Amino acid sequence: MSEWFETQTGMLDEVWRQLTRGVADAKAPARHPVLATVSADGLPEARTVVLRAAERSAARIEIHTDLNSAKVASLHHQPMAALHVWASKAHLQIRLAARMTIRTGDEVERIWAAIPEASRGNYGVTPAPGTPIADDRAFARAPDRSAFAVLDGQIQWIEALHLGRDLHRRVLYRADAGWSGQWLAP
Amino acid sequence: MSEWFETQTGMLDEVWRQLTRGVADAKAPARHPVLATVSADGLPEARTVVLRAAERSAARIEIHTDLNSAKVASLHHQPMAALHVWASKAHLQIRLAARMTIRTGDEVERIWAAIPEASRGNYGVTPAPGTPIADDRAFARAPDRSAFAVLDGQIQWIEALHLGRDLHRRVLYRADAGWSGQWLAP
Repeated sequence: MSEWFETQTGMLDEVWRQLTRGVADAKAPARHPVLATVSADGLPEARTVVLRAAERSAARIEIHTDLNSAKVASLHHQPMAALHVWASKAHLQIRLAARMTIRTGDEVERIWAAIPEASRGNYGVTPAPGTPIADDRAFARAPDRSAFAVLDGQIQWIEALHLGRDLHRRVLYRADAGWSGQWLAP
Repeated sequence: MSEWFETQTGMLDEVWRQLTRGVADAKAPARHPVLATVSADGLPEARTVVLRAAERSAARIEIHTDLNSAKVASLHHQPMAALHVWASKAHLQIRLAARMTIRTGDEVERIWAAIPEASRGNYGVTPAPGTPIADDRAFARAPDRSAFAVLDGQIQWIEALHLGRDLHRRVLYRADAGWSGQWLAP
């Protein structure tokens, strides 16, 4: 019986176990991945996001954001994003690349309807997130469905890196290869 | 007496406390930031790195890597990198932008000399990190000074985001403004 990190299928199963747990469990490492994007100026950006959905069968992830945030502007320019999770107890780094589609309005009405009232204030900050303000309280939060955006990510590849005691193992899984794995030098 | 997160100087002091602790303490959140870069193809990339130095007076960070890693190739193309730290106990997200200079050879001899023998194997993987290999053990690690690279980062700006119970506070500090702060809408 091998450990999960000794086989390519074991590692991919663990990746999806982590992502799925992240959606369900606010304390799981994959709850708060880092999303990296490229700005219109061609500069790298990274920030914490909340993972709202992860579907293995559809190779899909979902993130919610304010439509007026910088990341949305960046994704308009370069729709490819990188997601990063470090699952410390599993000694596993998950990296994935996804093409992000920005969904708003009627398309996301059902998702908006399911968001608790108390959380809706995260969408609809005035002025827009990142705008210079006079002091720390010079902004307002008010739920605004028109400012609610769903980032719908189609995963193109996943890379898993396990830091084992004796061996580091690194595998690349590609959508266009039917998610078969390829060992990489770590 | 205000809390550290209520003032711009308090937040910047906390940022540097976190970064400094990351260098000294392997368990500190800033020990393992996420480094985001842009590939030669213009795609975002993100991976965990180890923070090796953080000097407030010089506005400098330092990361060590294998010269043949993908991040070095990306930095040759786009030297600006983004660093991300989530300090969970402080409820503080640190984001910074740094221009990375890749130093090798004689320039980094003193740094190389200070690296314990047991850690030098991290620099000198054959084939190069990220190369497809036949199975999980089809690579070799051998300390190789010529494969050792220091990423010397000159910080251009730092953004601090504190997630407080009643208020989220976000401040941008710019090198070209003498590190004075600017409140941003969170």
